Amino acid sequence: MPHTVSREIHLKSRPRFLPSREDFEIVEVPVPRPENGQVLVRNLFLSVDPYMRGQMVEQARANSFALGKPMDGACVGTVVESKRPDLKAGDYVLAEKSWRELYLSDGSELKKFEPDGLPVQTWLGVMGISGFTAYLGMLEVGKPHSRETVFVSAAAGAVGNTACQLAKLKGCRVIGSAGSDEKVEWLRTHGGIEAFNYKKVESIEGALKHLCPGGIDIYFDNVGGPHLEAALESLKTFGRVLLCGMISKTEADGRPFPLTNLNLAVRKRLTLTGFRASDHLHLFEQFSSDMRRWIEEGKIAWTETIVDGLENAPDAFLGLFRGENLGKMLVRVE
Amino acid sequence: MPHTVSREIHLKSRPRFLPSREDFEIVEVPVPRPENGQVLVRNLFLSVDPYMRGQMVEQARANSFALGKPMDGACVGTVVESKRPDLKAGDYVLAEKSWRELYLSDGSELKKFEPDGLPVQTWLGVMGISGFTAYLGMLEVGKPHSRETVFVSAAAGAVGNTACQLAKLKGCRVIGSAGSDEKVEWLRTHGGIEAFNYKKVESIEGALKHLCPGGIDIYFDNVGGPHLEAALESLKTFGRVLLCGMISKTEADGRPFPLTNLNLAVRKRLTLTGFRASDHLHLFEQFSSDMRRWIEEGKIAWTETIVDGLENAPDAFLGLFRGENLGKMLVRVE
Repeated sequence: MPHTVSREIHLKSRPRFLPSREDFEIVEVPVPRPENGQVLVRNLFLSVDPYMRGQMVEQARANSFALGKPMDGACVGTVVESKRPDLKAGDYVLAEKSWRELYLSDGSELKKFEPDGLPVQTWLGVMGISGFTAYLGMLEVGKPHSRETVFVSAAAGAVGNTACQLAKLKGCRVIGSAGSDEKVEWLRTHGGIEAFNYKKVESIEGALKHLCPGGIDIYFDNVGGPHLEAALESLKTFGRVLLCGMISKTEADGRPFPLTNLNLAVRKRLTLTGFRASDHLHLFEQFSSDMRRWIEEGKIAWTETIVDGLENAPDAFLGLFRGENLGKMLVRVE
Repeated sequence: MPHTVSREIHLKSRPRFLPSREDFEIVEVPVPRPENGQVLVRNLFLSVDPYMRGQMVEQARANSFALGKPMDGACVGTVVESKRPDLKAGDYVLAEKSWRELYLSDGSELKKFEPDGLPVQTWLGVMGISGFTAYLGMLEVGKPHSRETVFVSAAAGAVGNTACQLAKLKGCRVIGSAGSDEKVEWLRTHGGIEAFNYKKVESIEGALKHLCPGGIDIYFDNVGGPHLEAALESLKTFGRVLLCGMISKTEADGRPFPLTNLNLAVRKRLTLTGFRASDHLHLFEQFSSDMRRWIEEGKIAWTETIVDGLENAPDAFLGLFRGENLGKMLVRVE
């Protein structure tokens, strides 16, 4: 049977904590032509995301990545050849089959979509899981009211940036922190957000107190660590903390950042809520339609960082932990 | 004008962190006879509570105790002499005028109540703010369902004990921790609670894992610190943490206990909610009627530790931080 060849990035070894290039290897695998009921898909864009680190490190988790296999994550591809009536060559599909060029599928794991004028990679970012995570956290969990003050960390990241935009859309005052002047500049000029470079302030707590002397109502936490500690100091009574991720836990030696002021949650009657978008997929259609409309109305600004070439996917992924992405970090598979 | 003399315990100095006997002094003050519109009240029982420490330490807080004055807290008294039509000698009143024997009042700060067959001090404990705090936290915030597993720290304390009873009443399996074998024994035999002595287990985390291999649904936190850390490890996905108080922060040197695993709140999509009963006083009538009924039905077990004599109020209060109370800690004013 004739076959083609696909390059894949495999997980070679489990990092103890932070992954490095040596944990990945690129391999070539044969991909057969599709049989009846199958389609052959070529990936166009891959999403690399911080959560993948956890599934690399721990073998015991139900969803751990397997050694010697590609790390499955969100990707956008196009159908190359179809032996299914519901899909034809040229169709765009979303799947969780990333870190490879080509794959066969029986269709069950594919979600066909119409780009409808937007770049296809948007379905990995603002129209995809990043946007949905921001939507879910900020709107469904946070429920911001007009004129509330909202603080978002990693505000130039894929989720953070959309979280900022959604809070702004609800009439909130939005403060964002980011780790470079370039990101701060983007947030200010394109995002319409009050932003500061947390690496250049004396303390995050001081910066927040200065920017929000009246306190903050909602903190959308993408990082944990010193940002969370500072936000707890600035939150108003009955404030809400939306716990989306704690990349700050990712210190060089993997030691968790100790939080020393959670007692403020009692004194100020705060609510801290951990959430994950995938628990709420019943809201995805509503999200898609809302987000599409807001984009058309020009209410959502976003950006992306695109790394070219499957072979550079590990660098793109590792770059997330060095804050190298402005907006969504994507790999263009060429 | 003839007057009587009352002894009062005054705040003499602000402790840096943990209070000591030297921070209090006992003084005699003259109390005039009531004028028209006034009543003279004799305190019968005073409530001493951990939250008072915070109001001693910090001068800046709106509700800080003043130096050279009694520390106002909940108390039960009886009217000695009345020049008001709505109160007569012998009436029982609740007030926030503790740490003294006698006081004059214009009535506005008094809440008359009928003991109705229960000991008067019950209105400082299970029928009062301790019971209401447990009710509010466990039932209104926690919303336990039948057959859920609930863990309560400081389970032999005034709030913790009632929290256990309420969860049991809702059909939950209840695990309690306490700091002495005597408390554990009381919880088991009188409270009907599975209890362990946290000072005698190798680790709280291990004890919880052993007792609840399937995990816990709700953690009612009265202490913070290692208990909270252990509970975060044992909580199930979508578990709830009810943050009532963090007496563990009260280490000898006042340094806060560092929490190193709040990242689990993201991974397990936990909700942590700080609450204070006084925010929800509109529910107090509902609480009173519910609790009264449950007591009559024999569904609520409780106990109390009574220290005799106003002069011993500082020792009673300091004893809270050494875990000397089984159930509600009270001072009988003689």
